[in-house]
Amino acid sequence: MLPMSSSQAIIPPARIGIIGGGQLGRMMTQKAKRLGFRVAVLDPSPGSPAGQLADFQITGEFDDGARLHALVERCDLTTYDLEGIDVVALRALEKEGHLIRPSADLLELIQDKFGQRSHLARHGIPQPEFRAIEGEATPEQLAAFGYPLVQKIRRGGYDGRGVALIRGEADHSKLLPGPSYVERLVDIEKELAMIVARSVDGDMKGYALVEMVFDPRANLLEMLLAPARVAPEIAQRAEEIAMATVECLGGVGVFGVELFLSKSGEIVVNEVAPRPHNSGHYTYEACVTSQFEQHIRAVAGLPLGSVEQMRPAAMGNVLGHDEGGAGPPKLDGLAEVLAIPGAMVHIYGKAETRPFRKMGHVTVLGQDLEEARLKALKVKDTLRIRAGEQR
Amino acid sequence: MLPMSSSQAIIPPARIGIIGGGQLGRMMTQKAKRLGFRVAVLDPSPGSPAGQLADFQITGEFDDGARLHALVERCDLTTYDLEGIDVVALRALEKEGHLIRPSADLLELIQDKFGQRSHLARHGIPQPEFRAIEGEATPEQLAAFGYPLVQKIRRGGYDGRGVALIRGEADHSKLLPGPSYVERLVDIEKELAMIVARSVDGDMKGYALVEMVFDPRANLLEMLLAPARVAPEIAQRAEEIAMATVECLGGVGVFGVELFLSKSGEIVVNEVAPRPHNSGHYTYEACVTSQFEQHIRAVAGLPLGSVEQMRPAAMGNVLGHDEGGAGPPKLDGLAEVLAIPGAMVHIYGKAETRPFRKMGHVTVLGQDLEEARLKALKVKDTLRIRAGEQR
Repeated sequence: MLPMSSSQAIIPPARIGIIGGGQLGRMMTQKAKRLGFRVAVLDPSPGSPAGQLADFQITGEFDDGARLHALVERCDLTTYDLEGIDVVALRALEKEGHLIRPSADLLELIQDKFGQRSHLARHGIPQPEFRAIEGEATPEQLAAFGYPLVQKIRRGGYDGRGVALIRGEADHSKLLPGPSYVERLVDIEKELAMIVARSVDGDMKGYALVEMVFDPRANLLEMLLAPARVAPEIAQRAEEIAMATVECLGGVGVFGVELFLSKSGEIVVNEVAPRPHNSGHYTYEACVTSQFEQHIRAVAGLPLGSVEQMRPAAMGNVLGHDEGGAGPPKLDGLAEVLAIPGAMVHIYGKAETRPFRKMGHVTVLGQDLEEARLKALKVKDTLRIRAGEQR
Repeated sequence: MLPMSSSQAIIPPARIGIIGGGQLGRMMTQKAKRLGFRVAVLDPSPGSPAGQLADFQITGEFDDGARLHALVERCDLTTYDLEGIDVVALRALEKEGHLIRPSADLLELIQDKFGQRSHLARHGIPQPEFRAIEGEATPEQLAAFGYPLVQKIRRGGYDGRGVALIRGEADHSKLLPGPSYVERLVDIEKELAMIVARSVDGDMKGYALVEMVFDPRANLLEMLLAPARVAPEIAQRAEEIAMATVECLGGVGVFGVELFLSKSGEIVVNEVAPRPHNSGHYTYEACVTSQFEQHIRAVAGLPLGSVEQMRPAAMGNVLGHDEGGAGPPKLDGLAEVLAIPGAMVHIYGKAETRPFRKMGHVTVLGQDLEEARLKALKVKDTLRIRAGEQR
């Protein structure tokens, strides 16, 4: 469907297309439906988490131009819950007059992490020192940049994949092939993040700065704390940087801005996601308007909602247990977790669990952050998803 | 499906059946899915509001024993979002070992308003004076009870239907045929309500007492205010009565208890709904655990969640506009309403609007109740659903 004008708001019962049917798309679907929109989803897995709630799902890959076309042409507006989409196909659909938000240009910029860094650098956003790698990375290029460094592939990396930590020549065996760039290793004091929304009119709203706490043994996210436990001047500086980052990208929607606070007190941007982000899950319960509704409001050309946080919150992912392999999920400890006041459980409806697969999350609201944090630790020790028997 | 034991909790990804696919079932479905349950719905309208979000819908009437059977046997647990269900069929399904909550016995008690009154009277719950009518109501029976009185049909009345206000002999033409009873007209100061949850273990939690504000011209609910604007001792007394009412019913689930505060300061029970209730819509955004999640927790045998209210709230229904007749809904004023901080819009996805049909609701959160109330009045003047052109 072709909207009459791209400056006009998209109003329910219009249909919104979501490319990507994972948990982010699922929560976007929940909020879009609450507002009265119809929703269609494109995802390669039949019965995807979002597809289960949408009016219909088109099953196909994100680089399948025909399936992208089939989704977009049946929707008044299309958005996405992940970055790995064929931008050439998206741009062609835009040229036909279809509304895609954030735009194909913005997505292309984000997909190339070096291009993203270069764009932010041109706008004066603080980042780790970085440098292009011409062709395949060579020991000479690395030595010229100096150690320790982080090599990142330009496209397609996620959740730590496509990133190599090179502390010196002894690590050269870890070098990644293909187009990449290098950046200075940050001596990290804390990993921070902020969800920022930008409307069609350029109105911007930022949620509270949050803090990621890692389990030092497993190097896995242990929990997220909202707001971050940092000095007010650090929070203010980080929030300014995150807002400036989204402003210079000029996109429409919700953006997750990941930041590092270094041990020397510097704040730099790690990377930007052009969509709702894991670090904003807590907004579903803790804030007046969740990041998922906010994204739908923004891409539909509607006014942004209040980002006020009503309660401090801690959020932990629910991963498939590392023993027991793959199979239909079986939940242990749910009753115990629901007995914790303020513990809100999200299970994504994935048909199969695997070790460390993200199967859900729990947000715990507290009267203060420490109460929420302690309850979230208890949740972490209690809730287990293992592979059960086929039903 | 037959559960192993009715005292055992029903755990996701078990399937919950919901008889009734309206807006209450829709919000129950949203929360059940968030917890990881699968959901099936029985409703006569294909693509009902709840059916749109459920894994599947069975299309059929609530007194169609075969369709009830088809739903219940495919679910680990069945509940409902309305009272007008064939209890004989439900009881037969219970006898086969299927889990239905609240139970068929409780539903039958609630369906007969005179039976409900008699049960509450036996447990000392304050109510308006009431009396059975033998056979068809006669002028002699009414005169013996005294005027003014309210005649109510015993079964099937709702939203003011099945109720006749008889102020004296001049009103005898309004008398309702069929099984009925009479009760004393209460000189109402305020209509109040309270959502009360009761778990399988008999644990009970009550949400804040709320107040219904009526438009004196149209005799339509203008808005609901949470908490109610009453003196603390009135609120406490009303809450005690509502809790005692649900306790004496002994059911499992969420119950909406409607109360009258009389001009002389008396508090009496009007009636009880054995399900989430319109007067608890505000809990979706304003409370830590919504009435819809609470109902799912209760019927699944899981612990009840916190009923803490995070913000004062005002809720108004969105009705089909009284001009323009029936047709696909067209929303006016949505952008203006979403620009009001704290205004949360629910549109139920009904395919057709009609004058005064309930098409959605808006809950407004405020820093104080008066702020929420004033914003809700603005919403009421701004949001319009009219019949639009066929798409």
